[in-house]
Amino acid sequence: MQMYDLIMKKKRGLALSEEEIHYLVSGYTNGEIKDYQMSAFLMAVCFQGMNEQETFALTMNMRDSGRILDLSGISGVKVDKHSTGGVGDKTTFVLLAVIASLGVPVAKMSGRGLGHTGGTIDKFDCFEGFSTELTTEEFTEKVNRHYIAVAGQSGELAPADKKMYALRDVTGTVDEISLIASSIMSKKLAAGCDAIVLDVTYGQGAFMKTKEDAEKLAALMVKIGKSAGKKMSAVITSMCEPLGYSVGNALEVIEAIEALKGNAPKDLMEVVFALGEQMLLLAGRAKERNEARKLMEEAIASGAALEKLKELVVSQGGNPACIDVPELFPTAPHQTDILSEKEGYVTDLDALAVGLASMHLGGGRAAKEDGIDLSVGVVLRKKCGDYVKKGDVLAQVHSRESHPQEVIRSIKEAYTIRTENIKKEPVIYRIICG
Amino acid sequence: MQMYDLIMKKKRGLALSEEEIHYLVSGYTNGEIKDYQMSAFLMAVCFQGMNEQETFALTMNMRDSGRILDLSGISGVKVDKHSTGGVGDKTTFVLLAVIASLGVPVAKMSGRGLGHTGGTIDKFDCFEGFSTELTTEEFTEKVNRHYIAVAGQSGELAPADKKMYALRDVTGTVDEISLIASSIMSKKLAAGCDAIVLDVTYGQGAFMKTKEDAEKLAALMVKIGKSAGKKMSAVITSMCEPLGYSVGNALEVIEAIEALKGNAPKDLMEVVFALGEQMLLLAGRAKERNEARKLMEEAIASGAALEKLKELVVSQGGNPACIDVPELFPTAPHQTDILSEKEGYVTDLDALAVGLASMHLGGGRAAKEDGIDLSVGVVLRKKCGDYVKKGDVLAQVHSRESHPQEVIRSIKEAYTIRTENIKKEPVIYRIICG
Repeated sequence: MQMYDLIMKKKRGLALSEEEIHYLVSGYTNGEIKDYQMSAFLMAVCFQGMNEQETFALTMNMRDSGRILDLSGISGVKVDKHSTGGVGDKTTFVLLAVIASLGVPVAKMSGRGLGHTGGTIDKFDCFEGFSTELTTEEFTEKVNRHYIAVAGQSGELAPADKKMYALRDVTGTVDEISLIASSIMSKKLAAGCDAIVLDVTYGQGAFMKTKEDAEKLAALMVKIGKSAGKKMSAVITSMCEPLGYSVGNALEVIEAIEALKGNAPKDLMEVVFALGEQMLLLAGRAKERNEARKLMEEAIASGAALEKLKELVVSQGGNPACIDVPELFPTAPHQTDILSEKEGYVTDLDALAVGLASMHLGGGRAAKEDGIDLSVGVVLRKKCGDYVKKGDVLAQVHSRESHPQEVIRSIKEAYTIRTENIKKEPVIYRIICG
Repeated sequence: MQMYDLIMKKKRGLALSEEEIHYLVSGYTNGEIKDYQMSAFLMAVCFQGMNEQETFALTMNMRDSGRILDLSGISGVKVDKHSTGGVGDKTTFVLLAVIASLGVPVAKMSGRGLGHTGGTIDKFDCFEGFSTELTTEEFTEKVNRHYIAVAGQSGELAPADKKMYALRDVTGTVDEISLIASSIMSKKLAAGCDAIVLDVTYGQGAFMKTKEDAEKLAALMVKIGKSAGKKMSAVITSMCEPLGYSVGNALEVIEAIEALKGNAPKDLMEVVFALGEQMLLLAGRAKERNEARKLMEEAIASGAALEKLKELVVSQGGNPACIDVPELFPTAPHQTDILSEKEGYVTDLDALAVGLASMHLGGGRAAKEDGIDLSVGVVLRKKCGDYVKKGDVLAQVHSRESHPQEVIRSIKEAYTIRTENIKKEPVIYRIICG
């Protein structure tokens, strides 16, 4: 088999066979297929796409390129949750505690953030001493005991995807649906859970810019997961404006803790409940959505979810003191209020711009090896639909340097303020049950 | 400027600016831009194309990536001729002698063949001792004295194109019109002639499969050449069946010499005259096509063109004896007749299949470093429109091994024989005057 022929086949819009996809993945992983051939192939895929059979074969071959975690030592239905990324998205953090507190095992493998989207592991770093480096034995033991453990994603999982993603990242071939779906699903399938709930975001701050594309991606991933023998659900959520009010690692953790105390912004809780319902249904902990929702509301109202978070932090060596005293979290030296220069309704709040602003403050990574500042970020005071007067505080910037001009300007520009209000998009667009 | 942004721009179908194209070419030549990014970009070009401004900028930047030959030492209008490649295409060989014999300076830079299309330099190798390694001074002196010299193409000309072509060759990005046009024209412009006549072929054995694509390519190259200040013409010719009867280096040279003696197949002379007319018009040696044609016919009838070939061979150290005694040319040890198994009209003769057969016999290169056997090839006895009976000789294979089964089968398969004849395509489809 020749890579040249596979490139030409895809360029002409033909589908590759299972054997050809196997050659593609194994040849690229072992270095037989060169980067320059793979990138030409990937660009051809961006124009011609891959059909479902090809996408499934690509996913399975990437999954099988490394280790597949064996979670059989954990009793119960293990549910994983994955988000395609957003701005201010602290749902995972809230969900872990809620779901685990209901006795459903949450075996969470997670990564660090890249670009403007934060990673769950980065958020746990806000707890002094918290370690996510766990052996499989430790991980299994912790989930069995606490119903929850959080581990850093091992490089051994789906190494073919890792290599291919690094290439896609520098060759403009990231945003093709079959490549996105197979990349996400290869890692999720290798992580060994029984059920996967996907949060597929759309809008400015997300991978998928439109509802329709997000729905296509969600449907494709659900199909792949089911074909691979997993229970699957997907929730399609809006990332047109940031979720909740806080963007930045410690700031988001504080907002998530507040949510576990029952003081959450409405949009955040809508997403948490929608995802949690699917997790509880797939785990067999609830029979229908209303029942699931009630269980979660009780877990928060009773304080059980918050207790579960403390238990998790302690179990992985972290200091839980800041859960009760948020002032103990890392704090940025400067807070600057951004004031509105207009009067009217906020009709748009560019999530991507806010995410990038937080990244430029030092809260996100431009490259994988970059360090991040857990304390910096942006706290929004006004969101879409809100009425503001001149001089009202739109947002507050938490920064290392005083008065960071460029970030302030870009956040100001992220707000669109008009005299006429518009109808706000619902946060949940659709739910796809596998 | 970032290569990533240029990839994304092209992927989205936007045009690159002159500055961006400059960065692309210089960055790739100096190694700043990696192969894997360039190949992704090239694949995006295959889908989105480049407009005329981009193609022109790409051509000029590739031209300027190396040395530009200075032919100012040669008096008169220097005319170059270039073919996009064909099977059995010995027109250059015939034309050089005819045009030079009419006192028009022919400063021929040429390459070796690759794939199933032969190179002019390879054909001159058939003359023992013939050397194409000339310094610019030697080249200039020879053209001034003999009106003709043939030099091997210098690697210093358009090195950016050389590097990019090598990448295109292994990444399935060869067949895009703006890339083909800029690749050819960058080398031609660097070769320093005043006028360029293009033979743009179409059909099975050519780069361009259809008349329409060939016409587009021709028009684009004529436009580029004119914008660069050159006199330009293009002739669009059919390569649906091989040109003339012989395919293979020495075999083609013998047929070309016969043509200079006045014994040429009709299709070959049609192409020779069509191209020669344009060359003489651009050089100002004739005022209109009929006059040009008469001059060429006289040059052949008087023996002046044949004498000019001898003069050229002697001037570059070759042995001219075989011009009078063709038996002295390299001869393959085995000749095998291929007999027809059907009766009827030849309605199709696959030029590509014949070209590949000759290559597999050892007459062409699969890779640049391969050596070739000058003696082997195929002599066709029947071409499109001919009537054949069972047992008639279709073609004769000249080979190193006796009875090469696979080549014989593929040549047999190259012939389509039907009871009804079809109207034969004219060899010259169109002429584009600059």
